[in-house]
Amino acid sequence: MGEKVSQLPRETPKHPTIRASNSSFVLEKASSVKYEDRPIPELKSPYDVLVNVKFTGICGSDVHYWVHGAIGHFIVRDPMVLGHESAGIVTEVGSSVTTLKKGDRVAMEPGVPCRRCVRCKEGKYNICAHMAFAATPPFDGTLAKYYSLPEDFCYKLPENLSLEEGALVEPLSVGVHIVKQAAVRPGDSVVVFGAGPVGLLCMAVAKAFGANKIITVDINEDRLAFAQKYAATHAFRSQRESPADSAARLVKECGLGPGADIIIDASGAEICIQTAIHALRVGGTYVQGGMGKNDITFPIMAMCTKELNVKGSFRYGSGDYQLAVEMLAAGRISVKELITGKVAFTEAERAFEDVKAGKGIKMLIEGVKD
Amino acid sequence: MGEKVSQLPRETPKHPTIRASNSSFVLEKASSVKYEDRPIPELKSPYDVLVNVKFTGICGSDVHYWVHGAIGHFIVRDPMVLGHESAGIVTEVGSSVTTLKKGDRVAMEPGVPCRRCVRCKEGKYNICAHMAFAATPPFDGTLAKYYSLPEDFCYKLPENLSLEEGALVEPLSVGVHIVKQAAVRPGDSVVVFGAGPVGLLCMAVAKAFGANKIITVDINEDRLAFAQKYAATHAFRSQRESPADSAARLVKECGLGPGADIIIDASGAEICIQTAIHALRVGGTYVQGGMGKNDITFPIMAMCTKELNVKGSFRYGSGDYQLAVEMLAAGRISVKELITGKVAFTEAERAFEDVKAGKGIKMLIEGVKD
Amino acid sequence: MGEKVSQLPRETPKHPTIRASNSSFVLEKASSVKYEDRPIPELKSPYDVLVNVKFTGICGSDVHYWVHGAIGHFIVRDPMVLGHESAGIVTEVGSSVTTLKKGDRVAMEPGVPCRRCVRCKEGKYNICAHMAFAATPPFDGTLAKYYSLPEDFCYKLPENLSLEEGALVEPLSVGVHIVKQAAVRPGDSVVVFGAGPVGLLCMAVAKAFGANKIITVDINEDRLAFAQKYAATHAFRSQRESPADSAARLVKECGLGPGADIIIDASGAEICIQTAIHALRVGGTYVQGGMGKNDITFPIMAMCTKELNVKGSFRYGSGDYQLAVEMLAAGRISVKELITGKVAFTEAERAFEDVKAGKGIKMLIEGVKD
Amino acid sequence: MGEKVSQLPRETPKHPTIRASNSSFVLEKASSVKYEDRPIPELKSPYDVLVNVKFTGICGSDVHYWVHGAIGHFIVRDPMVLGHESAGIVTEVGSSVTTLKKGDRVAMEPGVPCRRCVRCKEGKYNICAHMAFAATPPFDGTLAKYYSLPEDFCYKLPENLSLEEGALVEPLSVGVHIVKQAAVRPGDSVVVFGAGPVGLLCMAVAKAFGANKIITVDINEDRLAFAQKYAATHAFRSQRESPADSAARLVKECGLGPGADIIIDASGAEICIQTAIHALRVGGTYVQGGMGKNDITFPIMAMCTKELNVKGSFRYGSGDYQLAVEMLAAGRISVKELITGKVAFTEAERAFEDVKAGKGIKMLIEGVKD
Repeated sequence: MGEKVSQLPRETPKHPTIRASNSSFVLEKASSVKYEDRPIPELKSPYDVLVNVKFTGICGSDVHYWVHGAIGHFIVRDPMVLGHESAGIVTEVGSSVTTLKKGDRVAMEPGVPCRRCVRCKEGKYNICAHMAFAATPPFDGTLAKYYSLPEDFCYKLPENLSLEEGALVEPLSVGVHIVKQAAVRPGDSVVVFGAGPVGLLCMAVAKAFGANKIITVDINEDRLAFAQKYAATHAFRSQRESPADSAARLVKECGLGPGADIIIDASGAEICIQTAIHALRVGGTYVQGGMGKNDITFPIMAMCTKELNVKGSFRYGSGDYQLAVEMLAAGRISVKELITGKVAFTEAERAFEDVKAGKGIKMLIEGVKD
Repeated sequence: MGEKVSQLPRETPKHPTIRASNSSFVLEKASSVKYEDRPIPELKSPYDVLVNVKFTGICGSDVHYWVHGAIGHFIVRDPMVLGHESAGIVTEVGSSVTTLKKGDRVAMEPGVPCRRCVRCKEGKYNICAHMAFAATPPFDGTLAKYYSLPEDFCYKLPENLSLEEGALVEPLSVGVHIVKQAAVRPGDSVVVFGAGPVGLLCMAVAKAFGANKIITVDINEDRLAFAQKYAATHAFRSQRESPADSAARLVKECGLGPGADIIIDASGAEICIQTAIHALRVGGTYVQGGMGKNDITFPIMAMCTKELNVKGSFRYGSGDYQLAVEMLAAGRISVKELITGKVAFTEAERAFEDVKAGKGIKMLIEGVKD
Repeated sequence: MGEKVSQLPRETPKHPTIRASNSSFVLEKASSVKYEDRPIPELKSPYDVLVNVKFTGICGSDVHYWVHGAIGHFIVRDPMVLGHESAGIVTEVGSSVTTLKKGDRVAMEPGVPCRRCVRCKEGKYNICAHMAFAATPPFDGTLAKYYSLPEDFCYKLPENLSLEEGALVEPLSVGVHIVKQAAVRPGDSVVVFGAGPVGLLCMAVAKAFGANKIITVDINEDRLAFAQKYAATHAFRSQRESPADSAARLVKECGLGPGADIIIDASGAEICIQTAIHALRVGGTYVQGGMGKNDITFPIMAMCTKELNVKGSFRYGSGDYQLAVEMLAAGRISVKELITGKVAFTEAERAFEDVKAGKGIKMLIEGVKD
Repeated sequence: MGEKVSQLPRETPKHPTIRASNSSFVLEKASSVKYEDRPIPELKSPYDVLVNVKFTGICGSDVHYWVHGAIGHFIVRDPMVLGHESAGIVTEVGSSVTTLKKGDRVAMEPGVPCRRCVRCKEGKYNICAHMAFAATPPFDGTLAKYYSLPEDFCYKLPENLSLEEGALVEPLSVGVHIVKQAAVRPGDSVVVFGAGPVGLLCMAVAKAFGANKIITVDINEDRLAFAQKYAATHAFRSQRESPADSAARLVKECGLGPGADIIIDASGAEICIQTAIHALRVGGTYVQGGMGKNDITFPIMAMCTKELNVKGSFRYGSGDYQLAVEMLAAGRISVKELITGKVAFTEAERAFEDVKAGKGIKMLIEGVKD
């Protein structure tokens, strides 16, 4: 069906009036960051709120921009504020805001869609072509003292959740979206390749969705051990062997019978993707969550004759953030154990270096101190 | 899952600047209409367009407001412009509009949702609690010279469609939504109770969706005959008999084997609803399209043990208008034969009287002459 | 789509060869039961197994046949063995059986479909018109020493589940099917009317499916207290008030915002069904699980304009028994606390009297002692 | 969820009693065929019928077995009757058969599943691991005078369909299944790579399902011309260019806006699959219908970030044959124009040579003359 609205112009954030100080962590170009005092964002609509950012996690994509100055065709041409995994405190509300008030603690969903295109109106705003996403050029990110968002993209944290946990709602929502794409249902066996933050959170979400077996696959023993303690029921260590052999061993060692119901890749590695296709049962589902090479060798005939469902997963959309908050609040998922460090806003670059070096699971940067 | 945004304030249309003349057909209170020269609407957003309304169909709900001054808890408290089935010509476009230009002929979708609530963001904007719908109090309708809408609620008519057909896109979209709710698939048998405009359009849409048998049910021989000529493959005349007997006769006479796959009610009549439930096969689907009594006697145990799917259908939503235009343009549905009369804007009240008297199928009111 | 196979003849069980003794609890006609020594069933196919029944729960339908001699158009014309909620030990396997062996402890799914009709082949065997269901005339039930079933309708109990729990797999599967019909997803709010065995099990399944709020509704304080201890997060006591008032109170007291996402009726009571429809949010889902009057007064217009999904639920089908066993084995659902009594096979009638009198939650009858 | 029944033994057809003569076209080993007089099949169950085969189409897989003696791990170890696209006349019915009688003309579905495994019971019998499929080793095919099948795998042809058309129901069902996997809905744009028999039938089915644009892609001008006359609305000729360039040109030349809604590959060619992934819109659907290399280079990141649905399609399953017959009978699809030749049974080998040489679209072999 034809797109009704194909090219809505999306304005990059403007700051018409300079109001006080908004210290920001800015990527100038590859490998070059600096602190800059920018204007505090104006509320662009009566439905917007202004948030004083308190914690921001670092994501692989942030590091990728920092190191390479680009991800695919998203190229940092002008200095851009980094960061998009944030939680903070509402400091100002627009005149039409009804669900939030000054002082509310919120998890911040960092991508705002156009709300007008076919994809938005059919309930898939995450693939809106006009998305304004924090720290994706040309849109500034959240590593600043203040950030403005529509109220419906700020999720009030219940009392039993901390702002640190609030910052983790972003990667958790990535996991929620992947697991929804996989349509995990109670009783399913779910294999997750890759035991980094996203893989771990996929396992936790799959568990909360009622998966029966949750199998973590990685090459790193420590990660496997952590995953088993955290959410997996079984662990499988990858070895140097053909994808078909690895798949056969996985199915046998983990008692997957005719193959796994669902496999999620959170590694982006070619060998994992190939192994996954071979390890699925007929009619099984595969979701690509991890990012890697653009093109890989893929067992297309196995996919065809086993009548698999192979799906992409991109960011998060309708209901994902809300569900992430609810599952955290209800205690069905825990993210505290993933937070392996916190640094002051003034030491943000050090945090980026640590993440680049593979240290810890999730590193948080604190907000600007008053 | 909790609603994130529960009570967005929706402003009623404002006309801050009086610009030229906008002749409007206004319902003052039950049974009392008048023409009024109102201000031409301002574009409320840069994404809006102004449309010079050219044809407007009359709907049962318009007549109901005219006769009773209310529908359920929607009460006409202030004078309200009537009409919501319109097509017209774009006369002005906002600064951000990219898909329409002055002079474009468009079908006008008359209900604009909030775009921000959970329902909107999950792709079901038709059940948005904050919908601003033309000619539903307190929102003015389209029976005026000019009406403003967001560009994405105006659907450009291809050259092979007339503005008269454009006005019929509204009731056709009602049919599209009902048939989508029914999930009609190729090969299905579909029974439609009621052969008025909505029933007829449901049959046409079911046919375009590949239904194998399309059975029109009514008490009026002329309507049945028209329906068969228009879109039905079989006709069944209701008689005075029990719902169970009527259902058994329907199934037998129309060769429905173990019962119908899908039944749509476009009559609102209690006896039809009861008959429908009895005439469905196990696992069949029923959609309530027609409006009638609030409460009826309903065969709930038959519904339960046959494991039926019973669904409501309310207005139209994501993709419905676009699909209606496309199916008309492709010639898979024809609506010309449903237009049984046209009156000048200055004779609008006469058209209401005719519709109230049950004359014709669909009556159009022409736009204001310059 | 037409039924390909409309009237497969289903043979009633035959016992061509008398082999040893098969003590059975037989309903002769309404209110008249006796013990009878019947032949041990022959395996009808090489895929069948013979099970020595060890525990059988009593269901409301068993009691209904006992008291009335019929349920609807299912009339006990010939003496019929009662019982269908059973677990036992495999004592004989057919020549083609590969997944079970003598001595295996199994939960017994008591309804075997034709496997050949359109419904069976589309994955909905629970609504197969040719179903042979235990203790539904003319098919004998499981309250006997031995009962034969195809291997794929016997589910091996893992070591951590007892045969008593195995007997509870039947009502648990009813709950699984209802909750699947309701399409409960993580984060949903689920209201269950009626806190009897099926209602309780629906709550437990909804919880295992990730429901966020689970609200038990009943008129009996003790049942509400048990439900809250067992699986509900909130309790709501019905009072004498209009359905609309009751719905408004339910929504308000339980913090359901714009209404409940999902409501399941496990009571069969007219007032509950009416209240449920009023208490649902727009786009919400209602499932009729409880059995009551054939026809009730139903708020059809609320159903229509809120665009609800209303569904029946009948027995259990594809994957339900398997999932019930898996969720029990994984400890995500517990049924032990529902077992409120056990009687010897020779005292079966007393158990029926207790159930009729409303004593306890689930009463089990032990198998025939050797 | 674990498979309940993992290894049902499937007996190869036995012919215990020699009854009259059953002339058969037998593949002895690669490149070696002969005629053999085999016993007429016994009915294996009271639900079976015996069919006198009247027309059999030749499929690429038949030719592949003839040329190579194997397809993947399906190896012809013992002489095997070829053929599986057949229609014929019922000559004998089992004692439990109720829907067919001697003399009925039927389309023959050539794969009979186990009816007992998890996949069968969830409605996906086409991926049953225990399928007995005609002319797939070790199961004999239909190129014989007589062939026996369960009644529910024989579809009575209405009077307006010929037995020749009946033989085409098999490849049409392949197209039905692919288009169902693609979930084509009215209004969709559908691109089909490859304009051979399956590609053509996919286009015809997509049209009957209400697709708006149907674009045929091939390298052969004659095939494109035929496809446009037959069912396509647009044609696109592949050229030597990169997949991304080809995709961009396809989208532009055919007016696909943000990309195609649905793409079906019926070619099996690597370059087509790559082009398809690039030509889809975000959220679009790809179905692999064609068979080619086991492994190809695949644009996995485009699949991931566009959040595509990629699916296999294997044979046909629940409801596909029935729908194919109904759409033919209703005139919504025509297959006569695809029949480009008929040869006598005694000249079967010549037909295989012609198909191997790429002559014509669909070649039929007549049944054994009495």
